[in-house]
Parts: sequence; structure tokens; C-alpha cells
Amino acid sequence: MEFSRRAMLGAMGGLAAGGTLAALTGKAIADAPVPAAMSEGKGGHFMQMGGEFSWKPMKLDPAECAPVAYSGYWYKGFGCGYGVFYGIVGMMAEKYGAPYNSFPFSMMELWKGGVSDWGTLCGALGGAAAAFSVFFPRKEAIPMVNELFRWYEQTAFPIYNPGEAAQGVKGVLPTSVAHSVLCHVSVSTWCHETKLKANGKERSERCGRITADVCAKAIEILNAKIEAGKDWKGALAKQESVAGCTSCHGKDKMSDMQKGNMDCTPCHSGSDAVADKFHDHPQQ
Amino acid sequence: MEFSRRAMLGAMGGLAAGGTLAALTGKAIADAPVPAAMSEGKGGHFMQMGGEFSWKPMKLDPAECAPVAYSGYWYKGFGCGYGVFYGIVGMMAEKYGAPYNSFPFSMMELWKGGVSDWGTLCGALGGAAAAFSVFFPRKEAIPMVNELFRWYEQTAFPIYNPGEAAQGVKGVLPTSVAHSVLCHVSVSTWCHETKLKANGKERSERCGRITADVCAKAIEILNAKIEAGKDWKGALAKQESVAGCTSCHGKDKMSDMQKGNMDCTPCHSGSDAVADKFHDHPQQ
Repeated sequence: MEFSRRAMLGAMGGLAAGGTLAALTGKAIADAPVPAAMSEGKGGHFMQMGGEFSWKPMKLDPAECAPVAYSGYWYKGFGCGYGVFYGIVGMMAEKYGAPYNSFPFSMMELWKGGVSDWGTLCGALGGAAAAFSVFFPRKEAIPMVNELFRWYEQTAFPIYNPGEAAQGVKGVLPTSVAHSVLCHVSVSTWCHETKLKANGKERSERCGRITADVCAKAIEILNAKIEAGKDWKGALAKQESVAGCTSCHGKDKMSDMQKGNMDCTPCHSGSDAVADKFHDHPQQ
Repeated sequence: MEFSRRAMLGAMGGLAAGGTLAALTGKAIADAPVPAAMSEGKGGHFMQMGGEFSWKPMKLDPAECAPVAYSGYWYKGFGCGYGVFYGIVGMMAEKYGAPYNSFPFSMMELWKGGVSDWGTLCGALGGAAAAFSVFFPRKEAIPMVNELFRWYEQTAFPIYNPGEAAQGVKGVLPTSVAHSVLCHVSVSTWCHETKLKANGKERSERCGRITADVCAKAIEILNAKIEAGKDWKGALAKQESVAGCTSCHGKDKMSDMQKGNMDCTPCHSGSDAVADKFHDHPQQ
């Protein structure tokens, strides 16, 4: 098999572009990404093989991928973000090979426990948002993330039930609505409402099932986006609290000191959860 | 140039392992990752080129990479997470080629505004945590993340000053300590304390400089980790609030309903910021 010197010696001294190699495998890849010129920014930095956002998104079957996401959650304990991301980009790799299969998937373990156990963004959502951003720049990814995150905030989880394939706990699990995309709030709310332990098997199972739920919803959004193209818009409106608070807190408004789109309610309602826990706590 | 059929036809029909291709470029890569067998989980899923966590971390110079991270923040508006991640993994790609240069870097735009403008985890921290997880599984990545995140919570930002190379606003910027790793809290606290706008040029510049700060600190941690190996431990202890709260809220404790390692204070101290903002607000 012959390679031209030009094809092999990229500007960065490394891999040839994905599309070229894909062609070499002899596997037909319908609509595989065309290798674009190496993108490059100021001073020779910010080069990217194939160009930015050059990987083509492929439609997937949520019913096929959700169980893979659930299994991915348990696979070596890689967790929620890995499960969702593999259930999307990994499934494209299984079906279409390059360039998807060059991704170092294990890095998505990053999201476990809301990023390395810190309880920030729910890792299942993080894995999905990361998958969207493989394919779409922010102007197109943000509406997709908005739709997914708003759906998550108001949905009673978990929905998915793996039946006999359950790897943690079998059977129906109690649900709760998080009203938040944060792992810490989502888990603690569920524990508070169900009286189940944050470090218990049921909680692990719950998060595994949410991994399947988020993967399926993300694929639904991805498929709709691929179908509709640039102008795709989600169905869910801005949360009532965000719409209300940003009517004063925003660009050119009375008080421009707010950043973000999370539901404001869990942390700014003066609820019992955010009351002073450093004095007279727990109450006798 | 000759390729064996075996080398080109991977189990997933795509790219050959990074090390093989790197050798083909003719560029000497000292200690380049050795291509391992394709990892594979149950039912043929979870395959990964070169095996999991097979990319080898390389030492970098924080003083060289921080300005690149700062430039990356501004490059096409890709933002904080892209800047930090490119300042680490992108710099390895520039210096060593494959497999680092196969990464679809633009996906790190994901982190902008705390993940697609949602204000969750500070994207600079997200980009750094993602870079750690490219190389290290959770048992080794978590201490690195703990050190970086705890340092961030208690540091007055921004520190970095690009001087004449400033792309937003030149000169010294006022600082604040976030006491939180969340973008929303970090930005709003800075705006509240400095009276500067969340949507202003100074705030953009601040976040660009924090991108450089976090990149430099992350590389310091990465270099120390590479030097010390498996047993590396950070210097910063658990925050006082987390140590206190988890003495009751944790595994086998009185109340196991807490997940995460964020400083508890900003949201659980009953401060003015978390008081009821839905009634009698703003106060007359």
C-alpha cells in the first residue's frame, strides 16, 4: 500500500487526517468526514487535524444506544459521563470506524461524580454536552444543551429499567425531580426524598439508569438536529425563574452580575436546604 | 512506504494505533506511547484504540504554555476550557505529534461559560480536569483535581497579566476569591465585589487571564505527578466546611445524603446570596 510523503507528513508531524486513513481500511464509510486542511491560528498554535468541528454527526437509535450507555456506566466503574459519551460517539466508532474510533474514550471517566467526585455538573449531562461539542460549534451546540438540561431539571428520574440486565439493583426505583443540573443537588435531593443513601447501591443504580435516560434523550436531540440542520430549535422554554431573574440581571439591565442558565430556585429561594447549616444544626 | 494489512485493519475498521503512525512520520518521539492491544468490554463494546489511558503524559513548561492558553481563550472565542486544554494537550501535540494531535480540540469549546453558558463548573477547571483524565484513571486523577480545585477556591483571581499582548483590556484587573469552583458563583462574586459587569470586556479579560492561571497551575501539578508517579499527593487539605459537614454527612455516618467536594459555605451558610430572592426583592 502506498502513501504519499505529503499525506503522511502533516504540519504537526503526526497522524494523517482521519478521512484518509478511513479510506485505507477498505471499509466503506458512507458520508465519512472529508479531511479538510489543517486549521491553524496565530503563531502556529491551535492547529487541528482535519479542521475544527470536522467530524460528521451520525444518526443513532436511542433504543439501541441507551443500554450500551447503561453498561458503559458500570464498565470498569467509568461512570455516567463515559457511559453517555460512549453511547453516542463510541457507537459511531463501532458503526463507522474513523475518525470516531481515534477518541480516547476513557478520559470521559472525568465526569464521574460530577467531575472527579466534586458534585458539579451531572456527569451524564456532561458526557452528552461533550458529545454535542465534538460536532457542533457553540452557536449550534447551545440550543441542544439548553433542551437537554431543561428537560433534565424537570424530569423525575430514573426512567430506564434494565430489567434482568441490572448490574446494581433490580426492580423499580423511586424517583425525584432535581430542579438542578448539578450532581450534588440532583443526588442529595433524591436521597432526601427517598431516604436512600448517597453511598448506597440504589443510588449507584439510579445514576446508571440516568446515564441511559440522558443518552437516549441526547440522541433524540442529535437526530432532530441532524434532520433540521442549522436552524434547529428546542421545544423547552427558559425556566420561569431564569426568565424572571434575567429580566433585571443581564446585559444592559439594572444589574449585570449573573452568569449561567441553571434554574435559580434551588439556591436563591431561601429554602431550608440553603439556610445556615453552620449554627444550630442539626436542630434538636 | 509500506503498510502491512494487519497494521491497517484494526478491530474497529479504522485508524491504526497512534504509536505505529507516529513511527511512520519519521519524527522521533522520545518515549511515545506504545500501541497496546485494543481494549474491549462486554459484548464487544467499549473498545479503545491503544487501550485505556494509553497516552503518555509529558512534562511542560507552565511559563511557555500559560500565554498559549490565554491566546486559546480568545482564538475564535473558543473560551476557557479550550484554552487550558490546548495549553496542555495541544502543546504536547505541537511538541510530540501523535497521538496527541489526533484530538478534536475544538470540542473543548464545550466548557465556555461553565458548559455551554450554563454557569456550572468553571470551564478553565473543566479543561484542566479533562486533560488530567486523558492520562490518568480516577484514582490518580482525583488527587490532582482536588489540589487544583481547592487552590482555585481560595485564590484571588486573576493573577496573570498579558501586558501589551492583552486581547480584551490592558492593565491590572481587580481580583476576588470565589470560594467556589462554579462559574456562576465565581463570576457573580467577582462582579459583586468589583462592581464590573458580567457581560463587560473586563470580565472577559478576567476569564482569559484565569485560563492562563489555571493552565499554569495544572501543568505544575502534572509535572509533579509525572515526577512522583502513582503515589503523588497534593498539599492542600480538605476545606474546613467539607471536613466539618462530612463528619456527619457521609458513608456510614448519621446522614448519608451528600455528594461532592465543593466548599459548602457559599450555598449552605444562609448568606444574603442564597436568601429568598423571589419575594421583597430587590429591597427598597
